[in-house]
Amino acid sequence: MVDGTNVVRELTVDLGERSYPIYIGEGLLQETSAYLEQHGVSKKSSLMIISDDNTAPLYLDTLVSSLTNAGYTVASAVVPAGEASKSLSMFENLITKALEAGLDRKSTIIALGGGVVGDLAGYVAAAYMRGIRFVQIPTTILAHDSSVGGKVAVNHPHAKNIIGAFHQPAFVLFDLKTLQSLPLRQVQCGLAEVIKHGLIWDESFVDWCDENMDKLLALDPEALGYALYKGCSVKAAVVSVDEREGGLRAILNLGHTIGHALEAVAGYGELTHGEAIAIGMIGSALVGVKLGAPQSVYEVTKRVFGKSGLPTRLPAHFDTDAIMSAMMHDKKFTEGSIVYVVPTAIGRVEVRSDVAASLVRETVEQLKQEADWQ
Amino acid sequence: MVDGTNVVRELTVDLGERSYPIYIGEGLLQETSAYLEQHGVSKKSSLMIISDDNTAPLYLDTLVSSLTNAGYTVASAVVPAGEASKSLSMFENLITKALEAGLDRKSTIIALGGGVVGDLAGYVAAAYMRGIRFVQIPTTILAHDSSVGGKVAVNHPHAKNIIGAFHQPAFVLFDLKTLQSLPLRQVQCGLAEVIKHGLIWDESFVDWCDENMDKLLALDPEALGYALYKGCSVKAAVVSVDEREGGLRAILNLGHTIGHALEAVAGYGELTHGEAIAIGMIGSALVGVKLGAPQSVYEVTKRVFGKSGLPTRLPAHFDTDAIMSAMMHDKKFTEGSIVYVVPTAIGRVEVRSDVAASLVRETVEQLKQEADWQ
Repeated sequence: MVDGTNVVRELTVDLGERSYPIYIGEGLLQETSAYLEQHGVSKKSSLMIISDDNTAPLYLDTLVSSLTNAGYTVASAVVPAGEASKSLSMFENLITKALEAGLDRKSTIIALGGGVVGDLAGYVAAAYMRGIRFVQIPTTILAHDSSVGGKVAVNHPHAKNIIGAFHQPAFVLFDLKTLQSLPLRQVQCGLAEVIKHGLIWDESFVDWCDENMDKLLALDPEALGYALYKGCSVKAAVVSVDEREGGLRAILNLGHTIGHALEAVAGYGELTHGEAIAIGMIGSALVGVKLGAPQSVYEVTKRVFGKSGLPTRLPAHFDTDAIMSAMMHDKKFTEGSIVYVVPTAIGRVEVRSDVAASLVRETVEQLKQEADWQ
Repeated sequence: MVDGTNVVRELTVDLGERSYPIYIGEGLLQETSAYLEQHGVSKKSSLMIISDDNTAPLYLDTLVSSLTNAGYTVASAVVPAGEASKSLSMFENLITKALEAGLDRKSTIIALGGGVVGDLAGYVAAAYMRGIRFVQIPTTILAHDSSVGGKVAVNHPHAKNIIGAFHQPAFVLFDLKTLQSLPLRQVQCGLAEVIKHGLIWDESFVDWCDENMDKLLALDPEALGYALYKGCSVKAAVVSVDEREGGLRAILNLGHTIGHALEAVAGYGELTHGEAIAIGMIGSALVGVKLGAPQSVYEVTKRVFGKSGLPTRLPAHFDTDAIMSAMMHDKKFTEGSIVYVVPTAIGRVEVRSDVAASLVRETVEQLKQEADWQ
């Protein structure tokens, strides 16, 4: 699809009757109504946009105007930005708003924002009347990851993402212009998942990231569009094979076993998700080398994250016992054994269930000793 | 399957990879562990039983002993009996209990109780870690209905069953002995859904109910086993064609448009669900006759419900305006038009979207004038 001047990249997440397209291009936000029409969204049933108070001031009016001008009835709800909004009480508030707005079974919920909004709005859409249509308009690079695969959830005070569903969107609309306002730290955070998709699947894309990191950090639209397309493509390929996390999808957790534990110990605040998993992926590379992967796996991983400005070592004040304990509560433990994603080469990983906790503990300690990348 | 002395009836709810069996027989509760083993439920992951404080004193110990003796690790949670437990806060409590019990992705949640427990426990299973295995052990006749089709949900203060999912059980175990303790009003309530399954699908089964009502009310095991088997079979046939309520499944709502409105107006307490939909089905028969069905549709419907001791008229103090208003909030309204299930003969219904609100209002008024069945 071409919208006049700019090429719109399109890819399909292939999930049988739940397949859906992802559109990536500049200025797509204003064209949301056309995409809704193309996907058969009726104007007789209300829409509800869910956004956050960082994103809404920038883009909500544009979106609402575009939709109301096209004849849609639109309600909107704005939640505080940040992980704390992924709570069951916020979920309940949004269900109440959906009821008040008169949403019915043919209504659509649109997530306008990053991963928090996507997860929260997606879970509202999954649960409301046992599931209504859902559209994602991600406004962060990080959300390229969560927008593929239909995992939606809210947090429980004791565990992240423990209350959720698999609920695939009808489509995903990535407007590259909305990414221009991202602060550097958010850009880096998103790039962590982009790079992860290279590390698990595509060595040449890791090389490309390595060579084009300056352009990505400068938010060059062509480079960014390509990187999002590649990142989404890898995720889509994995998810198409394993929609409900039976097997292959586990490789997407590269860096996440340590990463989630770091986020939990840091109280979901000190480290961004991207920073946590960047450190986690350095840790995974260390584990990989210990288990026989070439030293270059570690060197390339560290170099790419270093260039992106993401942390490559664990701040010394993190308590190793607390990290190990948080890992034991992670939902990737099944029947007492730990599922750990270990790189065997750049672009290749394996899921192992025989990684000893002592080896992981040793790696966590080692991460505190890492030199900064220069 | 035969368990020594008693025949166990078995039927399959055919939903492709989500297909599951329903077992109906006497004394199955003590054999739950054998059924779990047969269905590949590992002993390495904890189970959690969710029951209510009416059911638990009668059957929880038996179930727990049977499971622990077989080597399963079992946690249990008991909620107050009644619709009020189908709340988001109870749902959250149960998620907390599941976390505390260390449930993982291979764990199983067992619902031991009636429809409330099934809906609540089912939604916990649907949401916990985005969905874990679920087993139903219904202890009411009414629950034969909710145990087929995977609809699970909790209520919102403004709307019933508005927060939910489709989550199919691994299997359903009906122990006829657990039904012997049911109070008469609960028996009648369950028979309302049994009769409904005849009315929408199977004239000969309606005739059978008409002739065998005394045995059913006396909880004769053979009659009860047959009636549950037939009721589940009709529901299973409908659900197999239309798992996610796209079309045919709407016929299961016979009597429910008025019925749900009555329950809402009565505050979910004064009338049981069965009583509300019995009145609703008399109303549907009246609507059917107004729209051209033979008078006998009304007469047979009224006679069968009358024999069962269910109400056949609406108490005069119910406010018609309030009932009509409650109907407008029901989720079966889509894009402003009302979906109404109208009988055309005994054992046959059609889903119409052209039933005028004025006709329904007239019917509600008429239900207050109905003579008692004698």
